[in-house]
Amino acid sequence: VPTNRIEALSDGVFAIAMTILVLDLQIPSGRTDLLTRIGTQWPKLCSYALSFMMLGVLWIGHHFQFQYVKKADRTLLWINLMFLLVVTFLPFAAALLGREYDSPVAVVIYGSTVIAAGAWLLAHWVHATRDRQLVSPEIEDSVIASIRLRIVFGMLFTACATVAGFIDTRASMVMFLATPAVYLARTHVDVHVSKR
Amino acid sequence: VPTNRIEALSDGVFAIAMTILVLDLQIPSGRTDLLTRIGTQWPKLCSYALSFMMLGVLWIGHHFQFQYVKKADRTLLWINLMFLLVVTFLPFAAALLGREYDSPVAVVIYGSTVIAAGAWLLAHWVHATRDRQLVSPEIEDSVIASIRLRIVFGMLFTACATVAGFIDTRASMVMFLATPAVYLARTHVDVHVSKR
Amino acid sequence: VPTNRIEALSDGVFAIAMTILVLDLQIPSGRTDLLTRIGTQWPKLCSYALSFMMLGVLWIGHHFQFQYVKKADRTLLWINLMFLLVVTFLPFAAALLGREYDSPVAVVIYGSTVIAAGAWLLAHWVHATRDRQLVSPEIEDSVIASIRLRIVFGMLFTACATVAGFIDTRASMVMFLATPAVYLARTHVDVHVSKR
Amino acid sequence: VPTNRIEALSDGVFAIAMTILVLDLQIPSGRTDLLTRIGTQWPKLCSYALSFMMLGVLWIGHHFQFQYVKKADRTLLWINLMFLLVVTFLPFAAALLGREYDSPVAVVIYGSTVIAAGAWLLAHWVHATRDRQLVSPEIEDSVIASIRLRIVFGMLFTACATVAGFIDTRASMVMFLATPAVYLARTHVDVHVSKR
Repeated sequence: VPTNRIEALSDGVFAIAMTILVLDLQIPSGRTDLLTRIGTQWPKLCSYALSFMMLGVLWIGHHFQFQYVKKADRTLLWINLMFLLVVTFLPFAAALLGREYDSPVAVVIYGSTVIAAGAWLLAHWVHATRDRQLVSPEIEDSVIASIRLRIVFGMLFTACATVAGFIDTRASMVMFLATPAVYLARTHVDVHVSKR
Repeated sequence: VPTNRIEALSDGVFAIAMTILVLDLQIPSGRTDLLTRIGTQWPKLCSYALSFMMLGVLWIGHHFQFQYVKKADRTLLWINLMFLLVVTFLPFAAALLGREYDSPVAVVIYGSTVIAAGAWLLAHWVHATRDRQLVSPEIEDSVIASIRLRIVFGMLFTACATVAGFIDTRASMVMFLATPAVYLARTHVDVHVSKR
Repeated sequence: VPTNRIEALSDGVFAIAMTILVLDLQIPSGRTDLLTRIGTQWPKLCSYALSFMMLGVLWIGHHFQFQYVKKADRTLLWINLMFLLVVTFLPFAAALLGREYDSPVAVVIYGSTVIAAGAWLLAHWVHATRDRQLVSPEIEDSVIASIRLRIVFGMLFTACATVAGFIDTRASMVMFLATPAVYLARTHVDVHVSKR
Repeated sequence: VPTNRIEALSDGVFAIAMTILVLDLQIPSGRTDLLTRIGTQWPKLCSYALSFMMLGVLWIGHHFQFQYVKKADRTLLWINLMFLLVVTFLPFAAALLGREYDSPVAVVIYGSTVIAAGAWLLAHWVHATRDRQLVSPEIEDSVIASIRLRIVFGMLFTACATVAGFIDTRASMVMFLATPAVYLARTHVDVHVSKR
């Protein structure tokens, strides 16, 4: 089974999830100054930019895997669907975080959503690379391990950010926002890819 | 007429239908605890996860057919559009089921939508394989029959789940949720595909 | 300039326009029977099914043109964007028609939107086929003329349906709904295509 | 890293952003004449048509770059994501402009969004063409410079339109609407492309 339609469906879901985040931004009407009214929306603006970035990180991770994944079986289709289910849930978690940004419950729901997305991405990679059944056979062990490590690291980082929410939810926000920055730093995979 | 744009339109419709399901989840604001307020939304959460899975099952079915369907005529275009019309209706049926989950009417509308989607999927396959006019000629009879059987079986199962709603709507919910699990079990098509 | 990304953008816009039509369907909550409440929504249901079909007819028309259009210039890009602008306006016109179905003004706005879409589709074809500048050179004159005729015929039919709204808006609805049926009837283009 | 999935995600985001613009158009119900009620929505209608055009201009710019950009690195992925973040913000800025069209603040937010999109598009081109690292090596200097110039010119024009909003917001509207017209005028890139 070729993978092009899985990628098309996934790109579609990501594109929509990224775009409907903005539907949550609503400027209240009222007699006060427009800037003041926009100012009241900063937690939603933060959550919107943050969630867009998170979806970007997840999309890049998904994108990277499919450079190596060459075919799909039914299990991979379902792992991918479960991953996309979590991706579609992120706009809801983002809206919650934007509205109840001082609640540890909202932070835990948001963090768990991101961790769950990471877990499915990891399951996706582990299933595809087991005995190299769905990836090109010449892929190196070091690449398999480094992609696995990237995902695990991201999940641990998000778990820390989530736990930090029990002390101060603003600390979680800052740590969540730092995730893309962490990923921007070049790692082994990039080096491997640019060497090719 | 090649099929790539039909697949692109279909993937787009599926991706959007899957993603807008989440727009129905709305946490009521209020003075009570956030967890309590989220707790009131469990029927909507169930309906969201269920409907995502249903769309996943339908998408996989559509995906499988187009591995064999090699060209399209105007009738196939219209069967496909009718199928997509039902697919776009599912988020509405899902919202209804999430809000009025104890009403047999909502269960019947939801079940009928899923059955209608199956019926169009069946019409799609029957039209494409009649005299092998739109599929690759070397496709085996057993594959044609097994895909047909899968769809009929799914429709019958959904019909049973819908009828069960007249006794207890929760029984329908459980049976609906079991549908993807049933499909996850490997069948003849998978075996055929993995043998290739 | 190749045309694949124009087709991708167009398929995306069509897929979304088709799917957001359903967002207009809202079941009022209340103490009355669910079926009764759904019954109050029949004009919206009609408008939804009708508009999905209209978008289907337009998508098929667009799809057919791009089987012959092999490259694009900047003018074609802009004609296509104007066409897509009208396509995105259709869900608004559909919502209007669903709510104010007994108003000739709503019928005129709906009809004009469909006619405008046809006009841009016609401009698209006329521009692409002028001196065969953007289509494959071996395309026959009869195909060029028959596609042009199909669009003009559709526009005239829609114009009649719109004018009928000044006498009885329900007559317009019926005529609008008949449009896809008219297109389902096989025409010269189909014969030509199936002969190939 | 090939670019086809970046283009697919971008086309998806553009298609959705273009289509959800129309969700902002809402006809108020009431006892007055329908035409009168639609008449009250003209600023929203203007903002919708304008923003669709702006997205069209940006999409064409993006489309043009990817005719030359042949591969992607991680930096290009992120520049592209930042560009798409701004693109998804445009429907929000459009809704603001449609509602508070007489406020210079709304004009500044709208103008800044368009300028930011241009800035990321410029960064995208500058990064891709530096030492011709991500574009085909035979691309001429004049093409690189002319695409860069087009973007800078568009940003300057939008900046002027934004500043004009402090005197009269309607002047900004007119100038914003003129942007696509300016781009419609043929330039050096077109000539180059049509000569090929």
